[in-house]
Amino acid sequence: MSRSPTAVQVDRDRIERIVRDVVANRFAPRSATGRPPLMVNISARHMHISREHLEQLFGPGAELTPFKPLYQTGEFASEQTVDLIGPRRRMLHSVRILGPTRPQSQIELAFTDSIALGIDVPVRMSGNHEGTPGCIVLGPGGHIVLERGVVRAQRHVHMNSADAEYYGVRNGDPMDLVVEHPTCPVVIRGIIARIHANFKLEVHIDTDEGNCCDLPRATGVRLEKERK
Amino acid sequence: MSRSPTAVQVDRDRIERIVRDVVANRFAPRSATGRPPLMVNISARHMHISREHLEQLFGPGAELTPFKPLYQTGEFASEQTVDLIGPRRRMLHSVRILGPTRPQSQIELAFTDSIALGIDVPVRMSGNHEGTPGCIVLGPGGHIVLERGVVRAQRHVHMNSADAEYYGVRNGDPMDLVVEHPTCPVVIRGIIARIHANFKLEVHIDTDEGNCCDLPRATGVRLEKERK
Repeated sequence: MSRSPTAVQVDRDRIERIVRDVVANRFAPRSATGRPPLMVNISARHMHISREHLEQLFGPGAELTPFKPLYQTGEFASEQTVDLIGPRRRMLHSVRILGPTRPQSQIELAFTDSIALGIDVPVRMSGNHEGTPGCIVLGPGGHIVLERGVVRAQRHVHMNSADAEYYGVRNGDPMDLVVEHPTCPVVIRGIIARIHANFKLEVHIDTDEGNCCDLPRATGVRLEKERK
Repeated sequence: MSRSPTAVQVDRDRIERIVRDVVANRFAPRSATGRPPLMVNISARHMHISREHLEQLFGPGAELTPFKPLYQTGEFASEQTVDLIGPRRRMLHSVRILGPTRPQSQIELAFTDSIALGIDVPVRMSGNHEGTPGCIVLGPGGHIVLERGVVRAQRHVHMNSADAEYYGVRNGDPMDLVVEHPTCPVVIRGIIARIHANFKLEVHIDTDEGNCCDLPRATGVRLEKERK
């Protein structure tokens, strides 16, 4: 394998972390008139992993090493990364694993990533893997042939029931994220409300969505119940 | 140079052409109630080139070879491609040149491309290069150090004055592209109207914008004067 694509991917991860930090600082702390403070985070391509796959890829007894906590309590980016191989010898390097481990492995890609990997991925809510493609996953201790579970994550917003009441939405309702920007304004629609007592209010979009609207330089973001 | 990234880029170009064809077939031929037929095209990263730079990169007397006509009359994708080098040894391979030649060279990247290249590119209308970054451009016959002209193209729509009258817009007005989709609906705002007698009605968005809304599988697109 050549070294240059790996270097590009690693640096891209770094940039994406910076973007997330900037966004976090920009948009989190603004609760004015009872409106819950809104966090919007860009998820770079990543993998959720089962314990069985973790051991196959990183060796018997392997554990995920937390690298950076994520906004939702208990979630973290791990130090571990994998490489993905798609059809026709295409690869994506240094895809980060998020922890903790889950019952099912799942790989989340933006469409730009999936085009680079040569896989046509469907949009799915997390955990719904019916009819989704797989790929080969390489780790330092071995490889697995993931039969399915490669998806583009459906854009969604985590919230608790007080947030849901504020916005007037129920679990599964689509919402709009209005992004104000001098040159790249966008309304990202179809953001599915995911309600749970432990969730903190946080919109998750992918890199295509974040780059479409140049989120780091947005002058305002607003979450709304979907307009009919 | 390693071969694998080049292979990825070339295949990506091919996929993006297919996307453009699908979109053209899907959305062009639908004029119902006097509404002008709307073409929406995704521009993959590309270069416009001056005659001087063409000769520096491809040799004295070089001419662009048409590879495929574009929708606007006289415009074409050429057979020629270049490689771009950004800071920190990052490269983008096989960036296609569009013809005919122009007075000024200009490179148009999506933000995802610019992150991969390590350049922070501003959003600009075509031809406005003040304060824009440059990069190194490699051709088979030499290289140039482009001092400026690397931009993200401001999303825009070409139209003639009859189209402009239909939509009630003037040159430079922002418009909305409403994209209907089962899972990825988006309203892409800030699409600038560019009016000229020879223009055919056509929206130009980049790959981040097209991937954000999964344009090839959109169930409908509608151009509107921007809502206040």
